[in-house]
Amino acid sequence: MTKAERFIPFAVIENFMVDVMVKAGIPKDDAKIIQDVLVKADKLGFDSHGVNRLKPIYLDRINDGILNPETKFEVVKETPTTAVVDGHNGMGHVIAYKSMQMAIDKAKKYGMGMVAVRNSTHYGFAGYYPLMAVEHNQIGITGTNARPSIAPTFGVENMLGTNPMTFGMPSDEDFPFLLDCATSITQRGKVEVYARQGKEMPKGWVIDENGESKTNSQEVLEDLIAGRAAFTPLGGVGEDGGGYKGYGYATVVEILSAALQQGAYMKMLMGIKDGKKVPYPLGHFFIAIDINAFTEPDDFKKITGDILRQLRASKKMPGQNRIYTAGEKEHDTWMNRKDKGVPFNDALFDEFAGMCKTYGLDSYLPHFQK
Amino acid sequence: MTKAERFIPFAVIENFMVDVMVKAGIPKDDAKIIQDVLVKADKLGFDSHGVNRLKPIYLDRINDGILNPETKFEVVKETPTTAVVDGHNGMGHVIAYKSMQMAIDKAKKYGMGMVAVRNSTHYGFAGYYPLMAVEHNQIGITGTNARPSIAPTFGVENMLGTNPMTFGMPSDEDFPFLLDCATSITQRGKVEVYARQGKEMPKGWVIDENGESKTNSQEVLEDLIAGRAAFTPLGGVGEDGGGYKGYGYATVVEILSAALQQGAYMKMLMGIKDGKKVPYPLGHFFIAIDINAFTEPDDFKKITGDILRQLRASKKMPGQNRIYTAGEKEHDTWMNRKDKGVPFNDALFDEFAGMCKTYGLDSYLPHFQK
Repeated sequence: MTKAERFIPFAVIENFMVDVMVKAGIPKDDAKIIQDVLVKADKLGFDSHGVNRLKPIYLDRINDGILNPETKFEVVKETPTTAVVDGHNGMGHVIAYKSMQMAIDKAKKYGMGMVAVRNSTHYGFAGYYPLMAVEHNQIGITGTNARPSIAPTFGVENMLGTNPMTFGMPSDEDFPFLLDCATSITQRGKVEVYARQGKEMPKGWVIDENGESKTNSQEVLEDLIAGRAAFTPLGGVGEDGGGYKGYGYATVVEILSAALQQGAYMKMLMGIKDGKKVPYPLGHFFIAIDINAFTEPDDFKKITGDILRQLRASKKMPGQNRIYTAGEKEHDTWMNRKDKGVPFNDALFDEFAGMCKTYGLDSYLPHFQK
Repeated sequence: MTKAERFIPFAVIENFMVDVMVKAGIPKDDAKIIQDVLVKADKLGFDSHGVNRLKPIYLDRINDGILNPETKFEVVKETPTTAVVDGHNGMGHVIAYKSMQMAIDKAKKYGMGMVAVRNSTHYGFAGYYPLMAVEHNQIGITGTNARPSIAPTFGVENMLGTNPMTFGMPSDEDFPFLLDCATSITQRGKVEVYARQGKEMPKGWVIDENGESKTNSQEVLEDLIAGRAAFTPLGGVGEDGGGYKGYGYATVVEILSAALQQGAYMKMLMGIKDGKKVPYPLGHFFIAIDINAFTEPDDFKKITGDILRQLRASKKMPGQNRIYTAGEKEHDTWMNRKDKGVPFNDALFDEFAGMCKTYGLDSYLPHFQK
């Protein structure tokens, strides 16, 4: 973060985002959903998937004609516990939000629900959707495929998306268990952070066409797009570190994001065809499990909380004074930001000021002066 | 494997195992299930979880009074899609088989099924149960907790089981997608192999109380039991390799194996109390998802097969001529063994000959002569 970093109050950002999205042709109710997903990422510290994505990943793609601002949410097939949804390349957040809500409603009635989605688009940070289930005393399990970037074990070609598999579970603590992570060791957002800081990346995160580690973060950003580099799966190169496991999890997510919904996968998700930008017709899946169908939610939360507390209280490695559980750092970030807002750096101020002008929202300009 | 290795025909092993288990007090129908799980592990190459476990992990524990040969399978709570089962420390394979079958039956009727189990015991290789779902054109997702052995990120204490999270999915190939792996880099069975071969293990698999790598495989086997060493999560020590992700997945499995079923977890699963052997009251979960509820099974299988074929056909790392997908090595092993049987080494011959004598099954002795 730069010296010029300031925090912009959530209310300002939220109102601006809805207004600018409406100007871009997104219906207001949909804009509210998208705004909530993007701002929530910043609230929890998933900064690479927050409001900084509004322009490049969403508004620019609408302008490029590869993302439909009006979302046609079509339920292709439905049973009491399941559904298949076609998102027709509408706004991914809206498609995902409605799909997760369907899974939650089904789980409330029938104990479990699962919705498989095709022809969706980038839906923001994956952790948003299991958290929706948690608010209903449910377990949320979700995933999505993505533009191919992970090489399989013994391979060097970008084949699988960074394919997060997410889990959310309520606990008796102030915050739920939330695991939202790519099935590769790292992902593009983290490389971007290294590039901005002009830092070399650790060995083993990215390999070139010869299977050698690439650590120059700026080069990696270009090479990933060009297909000259690929992420390694969780567990790393080869089999010694268990890389076939991360590769296996990434494959699970690719299958669950494509086969149930008869959607697109792997190289179909390059976003480029014959040199022209084309949609990324992503697939997702959303599973909701109602805790009431098994036990009292309070009893579930107690054991979950006990497991997490015992993990944190266990013996530390020399030099470490804290063991975290999944979701804890996100809660810490929220505690730190809740009275401040979204952190803005110079580039973000410029980008938001630019949007004020492009979309005729000059009244917001004073908020986005560096 | 030793020079003396020979293959014992499956029919001989299967009959013997059922007979010896009946002698040990296990009802015949239950013995058939257990036999099938253990032999299937050898058929697919999960040798650390095969017939070699019959005596030490099952018959000896029955003799020690910490495992009930007669399984009381109690359904504590049930809804159309879900159930909670108490296994009363009966035979884990029987409990798991019946629970997965319940989940499958529920999924056939309602699209999805999930059964959460408490007070079970070691159920063999985890991959058996998702494969049951696959045979019904369903997706199987299962997991179990285990004796604590993984240290959390920034910790050194054995807290979480090696907690496999398994996935089985049908494809249009001769074999299904099957991912059955511990959420640690490695597990005890693999350390045993290194110890038998007198080999040092790679760095990073196991850490001591100071967080330093331990590579002496024989020492590690003792230190793991004594709590002086712990496995590292998939992703390794610290955060650079994504170790918090493997730690997160292990935690997910621990929660899903304990909180829904109000069962035991982590240090409750040490198997030792006040210096005496006590039961390991494990928890499992079994999820079945009916593909018919989403799409035609043949269409699902086609896309799954295409994903796997494209992964295998992708560009290899220099020096590698083959990329595998999950379940492929297991199928190769089966092709190699299907006309031969279970590989036996000297130690296994001795162990099986010993069981012939102990349980009065001398007619089998000629099969188990070295």
